[in-house]
Amino acid sequence: MEKMKLKMLYSDLKQDIDIIEKELEEALNSSSHLIYEASLHLLQAGGKRIRPVFVLISAKFGNYNIDKVKNVAVPLELIHSASLVHDDVIDNSDMRRGQHTVKAQWNNRVAMYTGDYIFARALEYVTKIENKKVHQILAHTMVEIVNGEIIQIEDKFRLNQNLKDYFRRIKRKTALLIESSCELGAIVGECDPKVVNNLKRYGYYVGMSYQIIDDILDFISTDKELGKPAGSDLLQGNITLPILLLQDHSEIKQFIERASQGTVTEQERLDMLEIVRKSDAIKKSMQISNQYLVKALKEVEALPNHPMKKKLRDVALFIGKRKF
Amino acid sequence: MEKMKLKMLYSDLKQDIDIIEKELEEALNSSSHLIYEASLHLLQAGGKRIRPVFVLISAKFGNYNIDKVKNVAVPLELIHSASLVHDDVIDNSDMRRGQHTVKAQWNNRVAMYTGDYIFARALEYVTKIENKKVHQILAHTMVEIVNGEIIQIEDKFRLNQNLKDYFRRIKRKTALLIESSCELGAIVGECDPKVVNNLKRYGYYVGMSYQIIDDILDFISTDKELGKPAGSDLLQGNITLPILLLQDHSEIKQFIERASQGTVTEQERLDMLEIVRKSDAIKKSMQISNQYLVKALKEVEALPNHPMKKKLRDVALFIGKRKF
Repeated sequence: MEKMKLKMLYSDLKQDIDIIEKELEEALNSSSHLIYEASLHLLQAGGKRIRPVFVLISAKFGNYNIDKVKNVAVPLELIHSASLVHDDVIDNSDMRRGQHTVKAQWNNRVAMYTGDYIFARALEYVTKIENKKVHQILAHTMVEIVNGEIIQIEDKFRLNQNLKDYFRRIKRKTALLIESSCELGAIVGECDPKVVNNLKRYGYYVGMSYQIIDDILDFISTDKELGKPAGSDLLQGNITLPILLLQDHSEIKQFIERASQGTVTEQERLDMLEIVRKSDAIKKSMQISNQYLVKALKEVEALPNHPMKKKLRDVALFIGKRKF
Repeated sequence: MEKMKLKMLYSDLKQDIDIIEKELEEALNSSSHLIYEASLHLLQAGGKRIRPVFVLISAKFGNYNIDKVKNVAVPLELIHSASLVHDDVIDNSDMRRGQHTVKAQWNNRVAMYTGDYIFARALEYVTKIENKKVHQILAHTMVEIVNGEIIQIEDKFRLNQNLKDYFRRIKRKTALLIESSCELGAIVGECDPKVVNNLKRYGYYVGMSYQIIDDILDFISTDKELGKPAGSDLLQGNITLPILLLQDHSEIKQFIERASQGTVTEQERLDMLEIVRKSDAIKKSMQISNQYLVKALKEVEALPNHPMKKKLRDVALFIGKRKF
C-alpha cells in the first residue's frame, strides 16, 4: 500500500521509469541461464527504484533527455542490486522484501557471481557515457560502498561504538548512492555547478534520513510488513541508531552478547523489541532523521524555481513518514 | 626457480614492472585496515604479473609511455586478483601458490568484499583513461570473465560435456584477460589497427595454451610444486582437458562420481593421478596446447620488425615448457 503511494508520487515520471525498467531487464541478459534467472529474480523482487527516480528528477532541472539520463539511472540501480545480493551473503539473509534471496533460492556461490555479474554489466553500461566526471563519481561511489560493507563487518556486535561510527556506515551504505544519483542526474542534465551541488547535498541528507528510518522500522514494524522477522538487524549484529541510544541498557547489552553467540530465543527477541519500542530511542532516532530532512528541504529551497522542487519536497516528506 | 627464469626473461622490463608493482600496492589503500591487509595479502601472494608484462611488451610496438601504459596494466592485474579471490570462495580453496587464501586466512565474507573492493579500485583506476574503447574492452572482459565463472559452476562434475564446453570455459577464465592485456597495451601504445589485432590474437592463443598447461600441471606436478594437492581441479569438479580425453575411462567416471559426493580417499586420489599420468591424455593435451602456441607464433611473424618480437616468441615458448 505504501508502495502504491510512492508510485502515485511519481506517476508523471512513470513512462520514463518504465523505459529504465525495460533497460534493466535487457542489461541482465546472459549466456548463462542460471545467472540470468538469478539476477532477474533479484531485480523483480523489486525495490522502489528510488535511485533512478532521483536521477530523473534531478536531470529535470537541466536539459532533460531520457536517452542520456537512463545511461546513469540504469548502472546506479544495477550497482544497488549487486550490493544487495552480496549483502545477503554477508548477513546470511534468506528473505528480503518478503521474497527468498538469491543466496536462499540458490546458494552463496551463485549469489556472489550474480553480484559480480550485475556489477560488470553496470560498468559495461557506463561505457556509453562520454563524460569522464560521471565515471569518476561512479567508481568512487563503488569503492566507498564496499569500504562501508567491510566496516559493517568490522563493527558487527561491537558494543563500544559511537554515533560517528554509525553515521559513517549509513553514509556509505545508503546516502552515498542517493547522493550520487542526484549529482549524476544533474550532471547529465548539464545543470549549473551550484544546482548540481544543491541536488547532491539534498541526496545525501535524504539518504541519511532514509537509512535511519529503515533502521527504526526494523524495530517497530511487524514481521509481515518487513518481509522478515523484526529485529533482524540486531540479531545479525548490526548496531543501529535506536540501539546506540540504548547503549547503557543492561538487557540490550546482554541481548547483543547472546546474539553474537547465536543463542537468542524467540521470546528473547520479542522482549528486546518490547524494550526498544517502549524506550524513547525510537522518538530520538526520528528526531535525528528529521534533522537530516530539514537540511534536505533547505537545499531544495536554494534551488532555482522549478516545478520539480515540489516533487523533491514531497519525496523528502514521504520518506519521513514512510512505514515500509 | 621457474619463477626466476620468467623474471630473467623480462629483466629489461623490470624497472617498469616495479613501477606497476608500487602502483598496485597504492591502489589498495583503504580506510579499512582489514580490507587493506586482506588485499595486500592477496597481492603479495604473488602471481607472475604476466598480464602487466603483456601490456608492456604490446605497448612497445607503438609509442611507449609508462605513465599511460600503467593505467591499463594496473587495473588488468587488479581485475585478475579480484577474480582469484572470488574463485577461491567458489572452489573452497584454502591454498593458492603455497599460501593461505584470503578465504582461509579470514573467511568467505571477507574474501567476497576484498574481491569487490579490488574490482571497484580497478574501475577507479580506469577512469584515468580517456579512450572510450579501452573502457568498453575492459567492461566487456569483466562481463565475460564472470559469465565464465558461472559456466564453470554449471559445468562442475558434469560428465556429458565436450571439448567445446572446455574451450568456452578457459577462454573466459584465462585467454580473454591475456587477449585484452595485449590489445589494450597496443591501443594505449597507439599501434596500427592491424598490429593491435595481431597482438590481440597472440594474447588469445597464448592464453588458451597457458590454461591448458595449467590444467595439465594440476595432474603431473608434485603437491609441493603446486602449493596444493595434485588433482585438486578434478576433486573440485572442474573437468579439464586431460579428463575430457579420458571421458570413457570407467575408473575416471567413478572417481568423478565419488568426488561429487565428497567421499574420495587419499589413496583414490593417488590412483586417479596414476591413471591420468600413465594415459596418453597428457601428451594429447600438450599437443593441443602446442597447436595454440603455433598459432600465437604465426601472429608474431605477422608483426612488423621490432626487437620485442623475440620477447613475444620467448614468452610463448616459455609457456609451452613451464613446469609451475
